[in-house]
Amino acid sequence: MSLVNHQILLASRPAAEPTAENFKLVEKPVPTRDELGEGQVLVRHHYLSLDPYMRGRMSDSKSYAEPQPLDAVMIGGTVGEVVASKHPRFDEGDPVVCMGGWQEYSVIDASQRGALSKVDTRQIPLSAYLGAVGMPGVTAWYGLVKIIAPKAGDTVLVSAASGAVGGVVGQLAKARGCRVVGIAGGPDKCRYVVDELGFDACIDHKAHTDLRSLSGALRDAAPKGIDGCFENVGGLCLDAAMLRMNAFGRIALCGMIAGYSGQPIPMANPSLILVSRLKLEGFIVSEHPEVWPEATLELGGMVASGRLKFRESVAQGLASAPEAFLGLLKGKNFGKQLVKLI
Amino acid sequence: MSLVNHQILLASRPAAEPTAENFKLVEKPVPTRDELGEGQVLVRHHYLSLDPYMRGRMSDSKSYAEPQPLDAVMIGGTVGEVVASKHPRFDEGDPVVCMGGWQEYSVIDASQRGALSKVDTRQIPLSAYLGAVGMPGVTAWYGLVKIIAPKAGDTVLVSAASGAVGGVVGQLAKARGCRVVGIAGGPDKCRYVVDELGFDACIDHKAHTDLRSLSGALRDAAPKGIDGCFENVGGLCLDAAMLRMNAFGRIALCGMIAGYSGQPIPMANPSLILVSRLKLEGFIVSEHPEVWPEATLELGGMVASGRLKFRESVAQGLASAPEAFLGLLKGKNFGKQLVKLI
Repeated sequence: MSLVNHQILLASRPAAEPTAENFKLVEKPVPTRDELGEGQVLVRHHYLSLDPYMRGRMSDSKSYAEPQPLDAVMIGGTVGEVVASKHPRFDEGDPVVCMGGWQEYSVIDASQRGALSKVDTRQIPLSAYLGAVGMPGVTAWYGLVKIIAPKAGDTVLVSAASGAVGGVVGQLAKARGCRVVGIAGGPDKCRYVVDELGFDACIDHKAHTDLRSLSGALRDAAPKGIDGCFENVGGLCLDAAMLRMNAFGRIALCGMIAGYSGQPIPMANPSLILVSRLKLEGFIVSEHPEVWPEATLELGGMVASGRLKFRESVAQGLASAPEAFLGLLKGKNFGKQLVKLI
Repeated sequence: MSLVNHQILLASRPAAEPTAENFKLVEKPVPTRDELGEGQVLVRHHYLSLDPYMRGRMSDSKSYAEPQPLDAVMIGGTVGEVVASKHPRFDEGDPVVCMGGWQEYSVIDASQRGALSKVDTRQIPLSAYLGAVGMPGVTAWYGLVKIIAPKAGDTVLVSAASGAVGGVVGQLAKARGCRVVGIAGGPDKCRYVVDELGFDACIDHKAHTDLRSLSGALRDAAPKGIDGCFENVGGLCLDAAMLRMNAFGRIALCGMIAGYSGQPIPMANPSLILVSRLKLEGFIVSEHPEVWPEATLELGGMVASGRLKFRESVAQGLASAPEAFLGLLKGKNFGKQLVKLI
């Protein structure tokens, strides 16, 4: 009797906000070793990563990536173990990371460069390769190191500061001698950002819902102005940050929410880019694979030695993935959102 | 009997659009040689430069530069000749460039680094040192070379293409093997931009007054998309350009108009910075004096050999400066706006 692989497919594209009805849970048999082609590896997933970028893939509007096809397994990063291998570099039991998708098992063509990577779990937990030592961590590293390029003494602002990316940005900036100010939603997240992650201050955006109030809070938290801004949110956060940026400030644009029903939210005062001689740069970490070794060396070293802290929200079982993902889009998660599959 | 130096002072700050009443014409005696201090040089101005940045200085709102003081001579670039010198490096008759202001004569402390520069008028007309070989030319050079950094085959878009800065941007980009598209106001300016300056195409923004129409015209003129944008205008021009930018496009922000009564004009869709991984950078040329030698070497060589074309709008006499300046703000000039003072 063959094993069952549960999968979640994209059943329909969301008209406005996505709902659970956009997803469909199906069962497929897990391939046997004999069914693997040369160079293929069968991976059993331990964790699936849920990330905001998946929202964009659900739509078919113009974006930096191809849309997720309908009736195909949802895209997603996974960590797990090799359970069968027809590739000489991978053995049964190897801990690996791959883009396995929203399912319990995947067959990976390991001969394709970068498709399957062995990881070291002696000092770093497997799940961290989906978070602080994975794509979110390298995203944080790239935006901070390559775009913001802070000097000791600079003030760095991070929105979505309690999230998987934002938390790493702040701790990397602290390690570089910066003053670090976060923005997060609610007193619990703000307390965590300051007390556990070591930010110098954190502003609760739920307590500052207009430009005047939020930029006033920024002035108090960043009395010398802002030199670098790692922007995960856009909208009001970005407008308020721009009012407080020092001359020659750098803004790394990593995420931009849309307004209700998906229309773009304008930037209130773009002339500040000229007045304050700002640099804004949007980036997608997957387009910069060349930084991966340097970034993961620093991130992995900090995790292994306990200097880089992170938190995980873990949903249990593949069937819980849609609800966990919808919660992530509403900020209900606290730290890196994962789904545990074993 | 002493000579008379006519001066124009800032009499009041504009509430909304500036008017001639914001300026005041006064007379002062020209200092004699004996009245000069050690290191001082008396310059007789031949031309005064009128530039859009002066509008910003008239207000006292936050900007990158200190506001122009009330009841002081308006700031402005000038070229002229030395008529008396107490500095060993300058002799009577030397052609020079300085920030002499809106007046017929100025006393310059030539010992102050960069305050007074001798220029070579054997192959380059004196007035060009206020235009293509002066601040506007170096502005064009910096934004194109240092921010847009185009490769041969790139498409470069330039707004205010018939202006003193825009015309140079396009010709420098053509010299680098780019396809160059301009935006200008009216068929005469567009014809000049294509026929005389050698741009590949020029769009009349007066014929395309909404986003859909202007971005459609850009699609036709730049069928392979836009790789670099030199933005002198902002607002609708910038919004339309952003819709047509290719991945990793660079936008050099050199000028941004404000809306009626001075409030900022929003950027319609900043999420395109992320979707298209754009880089936007605001700059002020005076903060990059290190590029001046390299930039003026290229610009001067191109002017001397006739490969860099430009046009001047010349108003006659200092008293005509306010009207000429107000016309410049409304786009009535055609090419570099100067005031001839002798």
